[in-house]
Amino acid sequence: MVMMIGVMLVGLNGAVANTVVSGVKAESEKKSLGSILATNYFKDIDFVKEEEMVFGGWDVFYTDAFQAANYHKIIPFELYKNSEEFLKRLTPLKGYVNEWDTDEAINSDYSIKMWNLKNFMEAVNMVRKDIEEFKKKNNLENVVVVYLGLPLKNRRKLEDLNKVCFEDLTMLDGNYLPSSVAYAVGAILEGCPFVDFTPNLTLQLDFVEDLAIKNKVPLAGMDGNTGQTLMKTLIAPMLKIRNFKLIGWYSTNILGNNDGKVLSRPEHKALKIEDKLSVLEPILGYSDFEHVVDISYYRPRYDNKEAWDSIDFEGFLGLPMSFKINWLGRDSILAAPLVLDLIKHMDFSRRNQNYGIQEHLAIYFKHPLRSRYSRSNIPLYKDKLVLSFFDAFNLLLEFYKKIPIKN
Amino acid sequence: MVMMIGVMLVGLNGAVANTVVSGVKAESEKKSLGSILATNYFKDIDFVKEEEMVFGGWDVFYTDAFQAANYHKIIPFELYKNSEEFLKRLTPLKGYVNEWDTDEAINSDYSIKMWNLKNFMEAVNMVRKDIEEFKKKNNLENVVVVYLGLPLKNRRKLEDLNKVCFEDLTMLDGNYLPSSVAYAVGAILEGCPFVDFTPNLTLQLDFVEDLAIKNKVPLAGMDGNTGQTLMKTLIAPMLKIRNFKLIGWYSTNILGNNDGKVLSRPEHKALKIEDKLSVLEPILGYSDFEHVVDISYYRPRYDNKEAWDSIDFEGFLGLPMSFKINWLGRDSILAAPLVLDLIKHMDFSRRNQNYGIQEHLAIYFKHPLRSRYSRSNIPLYKDKLVLSFFDAFNLLLEFYKKIPIKN
Amino acid sequence: MVMMIGVMLVGLNGAVANTVVSGVKAESEKKSLGSILATNYFKDIDFVKEEEMVFGGWDVFYTDAFQAANYHKIIPFELYKNSEEFLKRLTPLKGYVNEWDTDEAINSDYSIKMWNLKNFMEAVNMVRKDIEEFKKKNNLENVVVVYLGLPLKNRRKLEDLNKVCFEDLTMLDGNYLPSSVAYAVGAILEGCPFVDFTPNLTLQLDFVEDLAIKNKVPLAGMDGNTGQTLMKTLIAPMLKIRNFKLIGWYSTNILGNNDGKVLSRPEHKALKIEDKLSVLEPILGYSDFEHVVDISYYRPRYDNKEAWDSIDFEGFLGLPMSFKINWLGRDSILAAPLVLDLIKHMDFSRRNQNYGIQEHLAIYFKHPLRSRYSRSNIPLYKDKLVLSFFDAFNLLLEFYKKIPIKN
Amino acid sequence: MVMMIGVMLVGLNGAVANTVVSGVKAESEKKSLGSILATNYFKDIDFVKEEEMVFGGWDVFYTDAFQAANYHKIIPFELYKNSEEFLKRLTPLKGYVNEWDTDEAINSDYSIKMWNLKNFMEAVNMVRKDIEEFKKKNNLENVVVVYLGLPLKNRRKLEDLNKVCFEDLTMLDGNYLPSSVAYAVGAILEGCPFVDFTPNLTLQLDFVEDLAIKNKVPLAGMDGNTGQTLMKTLIAPMLKIRNFKLIGWYSTNILGNNDGKVLSRPEHKALKIEDKLSVLEPILGYSDFEHVVDISYYRPRYDNKEAWDSIDFEGFLGLPMSFKINWLGRDSILAAPLVLDLIKHMDFSRRNQNYGIQEHLAIYFKHPLRSRYSRSNIPLYKDKLVLSFFDAFNLLLEFYKKIPIKN
Repeated sequence: MVMMIGVMLVGLNGAVANTVVSGVKAESEKKSLGSILATNYFKDIDFVKEEEMVFGGWDVFYTDAFQAANYHKIIPFELYKNSEEFLKRLTPLKGYVNEWDTDEAINSDYSIKMWNLKNFMEAVNMVRKDIEEFKKKNNLENVVVVYLGLPLKNRRKLEDLNKVCFEDLTMLDGNYLPSSVAYAVGAILEGCPFVDFTPNLTLQLDFVEDLAIKNKVPLAGMDGNTGQTLMKTLIAPMLKIRNFKLIGWYSTNILGNNDGKVLSRPEHKALKIEDKLSVLEPILGYSDFEHVVDISYYRPRYDNKEAWDSIDFEGFLGLPMSFKINWLGRDSILAAPLVLDLIKHMDFSRRNQNYGIQEHLAIYFKHPLRSRYSRSNIPLYKDKLVLSFFDAFNLLLEFYKKIPIKN
Repeated sequence: MVMMIGVMLVGLNGAVANTVVSGVKAESEKKSLGSILATNYFKDIDFVKEEEMVFGGWDVFYTDAFQAANYHKIIPFELYKNSEEFLKRLTPLKGYVNEWDTDEAINSDYSIKMWNLKNFMEAVNMVRKDIEEFKKKNNLENVVVVYLGLPLKNRRKLEDLNKVCFEDLTMLDGNYLPSSVAYAVGAILEGCPFVDFTPNLTLQLDFVEDLAIKNKVPLAGMDGNTGQTLMKTLIAPMLKIRNFKLIGWYSTNILGNNDGKVLSRPEHKALKIEDKLSVLEPILGYSDFEHVVDISYYRPRYDNKEAWDSIDFEGFLGLPMSFKINWLGRDSILAAPLVLDLIKHMDFSRRNQNYGIQEHLAIYFKHPLRSRYSRSNIPLYKDKLVLSFFDAFNLLLEFYKKIPIKN
Repeated sequence: MVMMIGVMLVGLNGAVANTVVSGVKAESEKKSLGSILATNYFKDIDFVKEEEMVFGGWDVFYTDAFQAANYHKIIPFELYKNSEEFLKRLTPLKGYVNEWDTDEAINSDYSIKMWNLKNFMEAVNMVRKDIEEFKKKNNLENVVVVYLGLPLKNRRKLEDLNKVCFEDLTMLDGNYLPSSVAYAVGAILEGCPFVDFTPNLTLQLDFVEDLAIKNKVPLAGMDGNTGQTLMKTLIAPMLKIRNFKLIGWYSTNILGNNDGKVLSRPEHKALKIEDKLSVLEPILGYSDFEHVVDISYYRPRYDNKEAWDSIDFEGFLGLPMSFKINWLGRDSILAAPLVLDLIKHMDFSRRNQNYGIQEHLAIYFKHPLRSRYSRSNIPLYKDKLVLSFFDAFNLLLEFYKKIPIKN
Repeated sequence: MVMMIGVMLVGLNGAVANTVVSGVKAESEKKSLGSILATNYFKDIDFVKEEEMVFGGWDVFYTDAFQAANYHKIIPFELYKNSEEFLKRLTPLKGYVNEWDTDEAINSDYSIKMWNLKNFMEAVNMVRKDIEEFKKKNNLENVVVVYLGLPLKNRRKLEDLNKVCFEDLTMLDGNYLPSSVAYAVGAILEGCPFVDFTPNLTLQLDFVEDLAIKNKVPLAGMDGNTGQTLMKTLIAPMLKIRNFKLIGWYSTNILGNNDGKVLSRPEHKALKIEDKLSVLEPILGYSDFEHVVDISYYRPRYDNKEAWDSIDFEGFLGLPMSFKINWLGRDSILAAPLVLDLIKHMDFSRRNQNYGIQEHLAIYFKHPLRSRYSRSNIPLYKDKLVLSFFDAFNLLLEFYKKIPIKN
């Protein structure tokens, strides 16, 4: 008998999560495209399969996944129409919101207002209960929680947040920490692996990883690496090897989905821009170049993420050259197979007793987190692992050679 | 006392060779940009220095290197004006031409018409004498010969040419083999390392490498990897790892220098296009995609090579995405530091008794040649080594870790 | 009672014609987009309406228009599914082919081989009969014929063809003139307006316009002006007025439909490239610039026509500047509303006794033809009217102010 | 004897003004490129010549024009080296600054601090004296003043400023109005034509035009139309005529000169963005599209202004298409010939008794101003004339046909 695994997505009706759940049942020979784990490199590893996943999650807007797919129009109707029944049954639990969330979330009827709760820990306990009930209802032993919510506001400095320890949660009010922390801590206390696919601060809080190790839970993050940053981790090492001196890199992004709308607001944009800006210097080994990153909300693009980059460098005798990249991507289509990969990785790590931050998953993230207990010698930039695209891929390959494969 | 090394360039007054000789003496802090060997990775290896090189060579147009630099306008006058005297003394020997050459070369007064010679071997012997005299005049022990001529016509199939063995040269007329072979064989018989930076067939003739090994000479080629193909070897492996299905890659190139003019003629263009086309399939491991490469002569660009690429691929569920690259490069500025690197590598290999095709130099070439006596397990595509940009770089690094460094 | 008008399309199952017939019945508020006649400028003119058109035509491949729409996938299924019945009834008559046609057409079973006919005139008479029967069957008085076939081969020079007069047709074999001439002459003799939307030579034959005037038939051509050339007629006048000196214009086109496949063959490409090349010089008034136009067949584009242009010019003190345009168009979507406009214009001209080449329609064509009896003072380039985009539009506006509107 | 005319530039050492003065004496056959007045259309009109201009002006940084040219590096040294003596003699008077200016200007030693003056009128009187002395010293009768300063801060609403009348200037403190107003009013009272080439509010103050008419002075503005906006006034009318529905236009600009640095500051950027945003709606006649304009300071560009635009529109049946424009311009090279044209136009208008806002110069400006006494029927958008590029050109042509030419 096949053991099913639960997958609970925060932001179930958002563009990425909805693309995951409406794509996963599509009858398409091309369902494995975009998945690193579907390449030949990993064909012998025993990962959980899509068919063995049971989906659920939270959102602050109540609608079923079929309606959400019709609204997002990311996947052609043909591809999910046969899953209508499955998708119609898929509805979210009420999401947890506090003052770090978007104004729309704060004003939503379908949400638990954390400022009304006794303290922050009460939200954690409610998340735990949600997970427990999901397990019971679906007869599951294990659940992976993936955070796919919108970028939160940046309201307090990380160093201030880092003064908090787990024991404080019962004394802090529901607004003190980002609402995302409630999901992470709730998941950990339930023994569930937790992935942060967003630029939020959740996994940068020191006590969170400590708690995960204590509770034997793998973590992974942060900020999914879908397009422009991926290209930067690819091109920057080439510039270094070919000894071209970077003098400037200008990047602009236009997107028209909800993510774009929220990122056009300065307080939501800050952390994302920081993740995007910090990728070049550590790879190149110098910082005397100009690096500008813009993000604009541009409705006509919907979920299609368009980016335009100008890369300016000097060659022999300092003569300037340049190239421009115009990226015509699809945000959620790029993200969804990475989310599915991450669920599989997390389940694998749990089964193989690999806990805390999973550094080997760096290739999936714009801001690949270091474990506080890391013994690797990967260079760091602040708390971020510094890896070119190919080094990150080699790191992933190595991990799976090291771990003995169990059945 | 410093031992000088000779460098003889075929096509001395062409854009690339002239950029090498007029750039090499420039007073510029940025002279090492564009050189792989100037990165930290190689800082401990004992390579010959630019100051230890004595330059000479052949061309079919007689002018001094100063005039040629004024004509090409590739390097700003400021940077080479102090080398006026040195450059004015630098004039070419008469080039060897036959019916494989461009019509301009064939009609040039300043050339040795190979069809007037007794046989092909006579041209080889004349090249030997040129080298010998250059050595004597400059009191040199060693010379590296680099072929930087224009792309030749494609007049006979490689398989027919490959029926020729060294002993036949005295029986073949001066038109039978590409004129470039006269330089290669002449150099080898003089014990001089030979590099082919062009898409010509020279080093693909089997007898050439055999002769080189017998004469203890290193060879390297072919077709310098400066811009668009470099980007392909960088991006294609990413597509593979990220499991994006390539459906098409359209590339167009516009350039206005002499190279561009010659490449706009179909019979000169053939080999170049072939080199450019053969890079994707072996890296990706499949061939069901469209791959188009255009090259157009466009005078307003002069030596600036502009390229525009559209890369079309499918992601999750087969949804199509695309990105475009507009490359605004400078042909000779990209090539010159690679040529200088190759001179150093060849001298190093000679000193370290590494003969025949130098496979570890694959990163420098669009069509990295396999040695007939290779023991490496690098995958092949026809006779071409199949390597991503980073694999090619790793190959180079490994070589220099393996070879004990001598003084 | 509404008087219906017949529309016979040559190439009925091709991309453009099929987009016309499958789009014309679509229930879409955006059906008038792309039509010049749907702007406010023309709202008072009494044009025939789409609902008053009865469609038919010829093709060398037998299939119904519904199947063809499914094959082309140019218009979303949603938009034409309600017209299934109408489209299924729409099937072509056998097309006329001779040695000027594509090899596919020549080899098609569903075609009249003109080389088997007694003489060229026999084909003309067969076309007349086709039209007559279409009229009778549909109870029509008038029919407009629009040539939307593929670009023909360029087999004989225009000056040789121009030695032919109408009376010769009974003495010439069926291969002598382009097959398109049979449609044009047939239409004229039946009193039907004829439009050439392709770069073929049809309407450049002097006897054709003479015949049209004698038979009181309006003509219009040639080569529909959809994307890149439109941009050229827009930008070149700006360069002139702003006194920027054009030094080069490089244009490349990639498209993956049948038109693209045929245009990738040199003998089919010649006339198209000529039309595209001849637009800049007459507007600018000088010719000392480089102008390169490439067309490549690139399957992944299907009917989407992508173009990339580099426009290089000099400003104050001769300093060079440049801009690039990347055009992501849809070939047939751009063409179809122009075809519908032209049908309306031709019907209007017929009703208003305006015969021969309709010069005022210049805005619709890459190669706007001059009438042999023109009294306008529009400058000429060879036999082509030289007009910027805005001058061409003004010419159209003027025409409709001059002609008294009848009911 | 030739009558000389004075030209006083505000911001004499800035990029544009310095390009004017260092370019104007260059020995180059291409000196007339970029000038509308150098086209054939205007060859019979009696404009003042560059050789008849005597240059001077103000700046807040003291340096001579030769040093400034060396600093800006906009024009190649070759082209201005022969003017060394002329340029070295060209030094600015002290500029007038108040709290509307950039912080750098406010902190400059070489400036008149307007907040230290008795009232705003004192600055006006000082400007008058500067002009008077310049006239006397150079024996001039007439001077044209051109404002080429940096974009000022946006500190007070135009409607508040518009409550001010000329008589109030003696009661207002030196900070109340933008410092640019002191130059404009000073020029007017001296009978000198005044041009505003920047997005500042100067000429939008109602009392300024009234004063100009009373004093028989022509005015022109505002915000020079060099690149991206020019393209918009060219393309938008085409979209309208071809009946394409614009759904979005995204524009980003990167530039690295001082203008770019200042425009990267929100309070300086506001007015510029407003000018750039207001061009599409009035031409198209609808506003339900997305229009985003970004400006980023990007040092590697220096004075080269690069722009990237994505233009998204719908065609037949609402199917979306797009094109992208990558503009690689040179800011000051585009601006300088327009400034020279404007000097000529203003002198012409003065000689021909045409006073107040010169509406016929609309083609030169992003925000072409309406005269308060206009009798034209050009549509308005707020107080801005709404004209396509070609309509604006026709307006200019008409003006010169109407005005009788005097000697």
